[in-house]
Amino acid sequence: MEVIVNSENVKYSDNYIESRYDYQYTTSERIGNQITVTPKTEQLVFRTQRKLPRLGVMLVGWGGNNGCTFTAALIANQLGLTWPTRRGTQKANWFGSITQSSTIPLGGHVNVPLASLLPTVHPNDIAVDGWDISGLSVAQAMERAQVLEPTLQELLKPHMKKYRPRPSIYAPDFIAANQSTRADNVLGGNKQKQVKQIMKDIEDFRNTQLLDKVIVLWTANTERFSEIIPGVNDTEENLKKSIANNHAELSPSTLFAYASISMGCPYINGSPQNTFVPGLVEFAESRGVYIGGDDFKSGQTKLKSVIVDFLVSAGIKPVSIVSYNHLGNNDGKNLSAPAQFKSKEVIQFNMIFIEIATLFKLQISKSNVVDDMVSSNEILYQPGEKPDHVVVIKYVPYVGKFQFEFQNKEAIH
Amino acid sequence: MEVIVNSENVKYSDNYIESRYDYQYTTSERIGNQITVTPKTEQLVFRTQRKLPRLGVMLVGWGGNNGCTFTAALIANQLGLTWPTRRGTQKANWFGSITQSSTIPLGGHVNVPLASLLPTVHPNDIAVDGWDISGLSVAQAMERAQVLEPTLQELLKPHMKKYRPRPSIYAPDFIAANQSTRADNVLGGNKQKQVKQIMKDIEDFRNTQLLDKVIVLWTANTERFSEIIPGVNDTEENLKKSIANNHAELSPSTLFAYASISMGCPYINGSPQNTFVPGLVEFAESRGVYIGGDDFKSGQTKLKSVIVDFLVSAGIKPVSIVSYNHLGNNDGKNLSAPAQFKSKEVIQFNMIFIEIATLFKLQISKSNVVDDMVSSNEILYQPGEKPDHVVVIKYVPYVGKFQFEFQNKEAIH
Amino acid sequence: MEVIVNSENVKYSDNYIESRYDYQYTTSERIGNQITVTPKTEQLVFRTQRKLPRLGVMLVGWGGNNGCTFTAALIANQLGLTWPTRRGTQKANWFGSITQSSTIPLGGHVNVPLASLLPTVHPNDIAVDGWDISGLSVAQAMERAQVLEPTLQELLKPHMKKYRPRPSIYAPDFIAANQSTRADNVLGGNKQKQVKQIMKDIEDFRNTQLLDKVIVLWTANTERFSEIIPGVNDTEENLKKSIANNHAELSPSTLFAYASISMGCPYINGSPQNTFVPGLVEFAESRGVYIGGDDFKSGQTKLKSVIVDFLVSAGIKPVSIVSYNHLGNNDGKNLSAPAQFKSKEVIQFNMIFIEIATLFKLQISKSNVVDDMVSSNEILYQPGEKPDHVVVIKYVPYVGKFQFEFQNKEAIH
Amino acid sequence: MEVIVNSENVKYSDNYIESRYDYQYTTSERIGNQITVTPKTEQLVFRTQRKLPRLGVMLVGWGGNNGCTFTAALIANQLGLTWPTRRGTQKANWFGSITQSSTIPLGGHVNVPLASLLPTVHPNDIAVDGWDISGLSVAQAMERAQVLEPTLQELLKPHMKKYRPRPSIYAPDFIAANQSTRADNVLGGNKQKQVKQIMKDIEDFRNTQLLDKVIVLWTANTERFSEIIPGVNDTEENLKKSIANNHAELSPSTLFAYASISMGCPYINGSPQNTFVPGLVEFAESRGVYIGGDDFKSGQTKLKSVIVDFLVSAGIKPVSIVSYNHLGNNDGKNLSAPAQFKSKEVIQFNMIFIEIATLFKLQISKSNVVDDMVSSNEILYQPGEKPDHVVVIKYVPYVGKFQFEFQNKEAIH
Repeated sequence: MEVIVNSENVKYSDNYIESRYDYQYTTSERIGNQITVTPKTEQLVFRTQRKLPRLGVMLVGWGGNNGCTFTAALIANQLGLTWPTRRGTQKANWFGSITQSSTIPLGGHVNVPLASLLPTVHPNDIAVDGWDISGLSVAQAMERAQVLEPTLQELLKPHMKKYRPRPSIYAPDFIAANQSTRADNVLGGNKQKQVKQIMKDIEDFRNTQLLDKVIVLWTANTERFSEIIPGVNDTEENLKKSIANNHAELSPSTLFAYASISMGCPYINGSPQNTFVPGLVEFAESRGVYIGGDDFKSGQTKLKSVIVDFLVSAGIKPVSIVSYNHLGNNDGKNLSAPAQFKSKEVIQFNMIFIEIATLFKLQISKSNVVDDMVSSNEILYQPGEKPDHVVVIKYVPYVGKFQFEFQNKEAIH
Repeated sequence: MEVIVNSENVKYSDNYIESRYDYQYTTSERIGNQITVTPKTEQLVFRTQRKLPRLGVMLVGWGGNNGCTFTAALIANQLGLTWPTRRGTQKANWFGSITQSSTIPLGGHVNVPLASLLPTVHPNDIAVDGWDISGLSVAQAMERAQVLEPTLQELLKPHMKKYRPRPSIYAPDFIAANQSTRADNVLGGNKQKQVKQIMKDIEDFRNTQLLDKVIVLWTANTERFSEIIPGVNDTEENLKKSIANNHAELSPSTLFAYASISMGCPYINGSPQNTFVPGLVEFAESRGVYIGGDDFKSGQTKLKSVIVDFLVSAGIKPVSIVSYNHLGNNDGKNLSAPAQFKSKEVIQFNMIFIEIATLFKLQISKSNVVDDMVSSNEILYQPGEKPDHVVVIKYVPYVGKFQFEFQNKEAIH
Repeated sequence: MEVIVNSENVKYSDNYIESRYDYQYTTSERIGNQITVTPKTEQLVFRTQRKLPRLGVMLVGWGGNNGCTFTAALIANQLGLTWPTRRGTQKANWFGSITQSSTIPLGGHVNVPLASLLPTVHPNDIAVDGWDISGLSVAQAMERAQVLEPTLQELLKPHMKKYRPRPSIYAPDFIAANQSTRADNVLGGNKQKQVKQIMKDIEDFRNTQLLDKVIVLWTANTERFSEIIPGVNDTEENLKKSIANNHAELSPSTLFAYASISMGCPYINGSPQNTFVPGLVEFAESRGVYIGGDDFKSGQTKLKSVIVDFLVSAGIKPVSIVSYNHLGNNDGKNLSAPAQFKSKEVIQFNMIFIEIATLFKLQISKSNVVDDMVSSNEILYQPGEKPDHVVVIKYVPYVGKFQFEFQNKEAIH
Repeated sequence: MEVIVNSENVKYSDNYIESRYDYQYTTSERIGNQITVTPKTEQLVFRTQRKLPRLGVMLVGWGGNNGCTFTAALIANQLGLTWPTRRGTQKANWFGSITQSSTIPLGGHVNVPLASLLPTVHPNDIAVDGWDISGLSVAQAMERAQVLEPTLQELLKPHMKKYRPRPSIYAPDFIAANQSTRADNVLGGNKQKQVKQIMKDIEDFRNTQLLDKVIVLWTANTERFSEIIPGVNDTEENLKKSIANNHAELSPSTLFAYASISMGCPYINGSPQNTFVPGLVEFAESRGVYIGGDDFKSGQTKLKSVIVDFLVSAGIKPVSIVSYNHLGNNDGKNLSAPAQFKSKEVIQFNMIFIEIATLFKLQISKSNVVDDMVSSNEILYQPGEKPDHVVVIKYVPYVGKFQFEFQNKEAIH
């Protein structure tokens, strides 16, 4: 399916699709009881390369439930696998993928998948590689994860056993003590040396697989928050020095992000820790590299957001929100156990999300749907008033093994 | 709070606010595997009267739970009542009202209530009147409804006992037999005469209260579906004749809508029956009168829509949707009991929704979120494929009395 | 494990264990405001055969979800099968079996399985056979049922494909029309001839497998209720005549029970219909054959009973009980579809439960925990007062296939 | 209603009802694979005083939700109050009381309330008094508790405002810091002096109200666990000395229990702390005074027990039990906040329950239904194996105010 836009605002050249877009917004000014609203228009130009790049993704935490299941999904779809289940034969598909399975209306009852609107790499064409503190092959990791049907695992094993995670950075101070038993595949040396090795790994993957683009994705354990220390991680310059000095307060995820930016590779963060310390943000900006992500939002977090957004938008006031995550996987184990996570209340954090717009204008925003909705409506909520909001994460081994799709991480200070 | 738009597209005169709006949409054409999308712009002009009309609402089924509670809410807010509850003192407010309690962002963290964007009648200023087949005063109806706290009822009674519903049209064939015990306040005569009386009632309310505008709102029992019979209710002309002939297949709600249109009053339908037979739609169009509404969407219907919309839009495929209404009120009693409602499955219907746009262009659409979402996505659902979708309505006397806000009606064929 | 009771009330001979038991109860008489309670004791003697019989079970509806899964469980346990699942390797066990997996305290922290108290046939030693209106082999039926893991099915198929149900009695008037597509394995001839054939089948099973005892168990579709007609099924004599006359109002289950009693085989009823018409009860009594069962009580029915029993016994008054069965299996399909099942409300019936005590004294009781609890407590419930009690059964194809353990049948008049 | 037992085992004299009861149990001995069970009979004699004592109850924590609502219930029933609610007029009753509202079958469909079996004080005849660290009158406490309908509160206030709690023992180390704002009515002096004052209070209540019997009931905050320290609270002698020495590790509840035993008054503990340190148990035994109680078991704790008991008894293996308490009351506030309650996991404790049987033989047992059931069944659970068992207690202010009946305390180490 190819979509062609018939408009003077969209130009097709051999290499690019260039589209002009009038972005309309308003500014407002309040004087006494009167608010003056002024409509504004800004013209944006989006240029999209027509030739699809050869794309690779490197996963930090490749052997985790997310990492090995993502890899399994790629392979099962590439090979068009089918396998028996209690409900009958199941065929691999991309249900749940926004680009492949959600549709956009084009008028006249025509709906097309999001991916067909613009040149988009198909997930089947993604090359995958990664790091993990556990040295199990990705096939073994899949068995440990207990996410997929055993009949499917059997079909995948021969294809997955050749994947073996590269050694990763292990900093016991940043994750739960109960993770130490997995840590048999770790990078030695100081932080400077570790960053260098990560950069070499990226280069190696790029060259071996003849890739045009590499994205680095953190899907490893949730770390404790890093302290923001003046002189240590507050500027690009200081961050660089602190890596050279092997400073204790630099988290593995900040090191991975640093290496990734250094290589010009976008870095996506799927856990709720504060990887993006100010020095790292400055570094990404100066290099013009995209960094982003504050958590994989799914399960109860996402559903709660959808419902709270609906309610407050409808003028209805939620007074009490209580949500539960029963996690049986290693993420739950990491979150539940360690001494430093003994906090009275698990708090949902909102991370810095960086969007590098087409025009290279940088916008930084913090987002948390519940708080946003509350602060948007002074009629329902007085200044300072909030609904009771409790998030409970419990490690329930039995439950979690079936909960891949509803896996959820909440940050912890 | 007054909002002024500083734009050449918005003009303020003494009597009107006139705004031009570029409505952008696309058309698409599919040839082979290629879809050509053409952006279009249509300029709409919205003219809004600056002087607020004196507004009245007439409720069909005034003595029902909705009718008397709506009236109580108006009075409690007009008087600024406060009353003791277990949670402490409660003050009347308009939480839950879209115009009064939902907010719109204007840029720069300024959010204003929807009502402040344009001249909008405040609900406190609405005059109320209505009809009911039960002759209880609205104060007595409020007691019967068991919706409000007794402490609030005590404060409201003196103000509400003067409200007494006008006699209504009672057609036992269209509602459940168990409603007959309430029917002590009914209009005699044939359908012609009944329509005339409803028109007189509207006129009387308008004159006595010095109103500029009257809206008629159906909040009475859900009726069985009317048959669409050629020669009877298929054209404006035939409908008129059938009223004169006292035809059996004209439902009370169609008669109320007919009278309302005749008086130039907008008619809103809050139950899921097919009041708007083709002849009535034609009549509304020829008179240029707004009619609309296919149900009060709230509780499980609404929440289900929100969630299904989110899931399918995210590329996730729901395979089974089962929702329950436990109704303890008279609506539940009407829906559960009668012989003609014996259908195997309660089916959710979607009614004709008529929107008379500013430019008097008429658009008719049918909407049901679940079906719409399914048909919008051929990746998740093959043509003809649907999720299991079961709606159960059960009359559970004990439960229902606390369920005003989550009251729900589903149409029944 | 062998349990020996050291008491003069228990005698062990070569062939029997004979135990005397003082059954204590009270009678009461109310005169005015005074109730006189008189304790009574009755001595019962239980004689249990020490040598275990070779036992066979014949299932009516062998190819249904219950039938084929029961057979699969027997075989998996006999062979000690293990199979991979997402949670790891699973080994066949008898969890959920009252005789094998519930324990009895004997004093001093010693708990033994119920089965070890008295000579009890181990389920692994049961021979199985049966009838079904569908001619699929039990292996194929297991596939259709979609209850077991595919990995387990694979292991079982070679052992189960040799089992093929005998032709069964098909009476379309008694079950849903949607069952007709399965009916390819049915007994021809009149009712007299059908009963004879069932008797021959039992004899054949007994002889071929060298069995001491055969039990017949109804696990087929829920039938509609039979009318009790004087002269037709009200006495043993009339029932006999009606079979000879091929009377239309004799249900398949009554015919199966008749044949079973004729052969001296206990008959257990697992569906909520009134198989046990008065003539059949009289026949069982005159032959001294055990008949019993009014439904497989599991899932919501059982859990509801447990909770209502607890609440009312604690002096707490439930005012509203609403329970749901989402069935996706063939039982749900049968219950949801047919015209004759169009009843407004699904009503939970309680069947005749016959207990032939050791002394051959017959006690007949009707039981329904909710009604029993309500009638036991005149403080919480006035005479005639009941909680709202609604049972909803919905056919939800997607859900049901995973619901074997919580399968539930409710009778329908 | 009077129940008379017509049996030679029950003797009625002017002052007593004396009944002999054969208590039957078994002992067992396991040798190799054989268990020998020996039935035993012990004759017990129960002597019940026929004249009802004038009974008083003293509540520790009188101003808490339990205390003031209990007092309100007594008064509302004594006066036979009725009050309007949304569901109609409500009359005070004793629903939920085991003695008044649960029934016992006597044979022949006669069921009588438990209270009518033996001479039992009617709750309406109980005199009430108590202590609280907050000096609010019980009427004010009832307002703060927000448990009862405001219409009922209005009727009760004139009767309740005369009740004012006596000063109580406040030991900040044993409860949450957030309770300090309530503590305006506390006993000064050392522990010796405090115990003396509590004894005087009991004496004063007994004399003023002309009581035959006083029971002391702890319904105050859950305390942290006391350390059991040799030489301090391990024997009666040491406990006495430690009180004289004002030892820091003696909790307020232990002091109240000590004073109560000293006065010969039964002491009931309604919170899950370890009030009954070994020295106190020894003291109760030597004085022959009844002490008991390890928590008010209600809501999720009780329901969970009922369901787990049913499941395991039926041979079904629960593998994961997760239960939640959303508490909005002061109990929830106490449990959620303090630093010393920072434990990773809330653990459900089982307290010493002391039962002084008729023959003054003392039996001490620990009970927790989940653990008991697990240890009773070695077929379902291997030695050392347990289901996941997580209990979560969350302070959710909005919810709790309606949750009186389902209030729940779980102990915390």
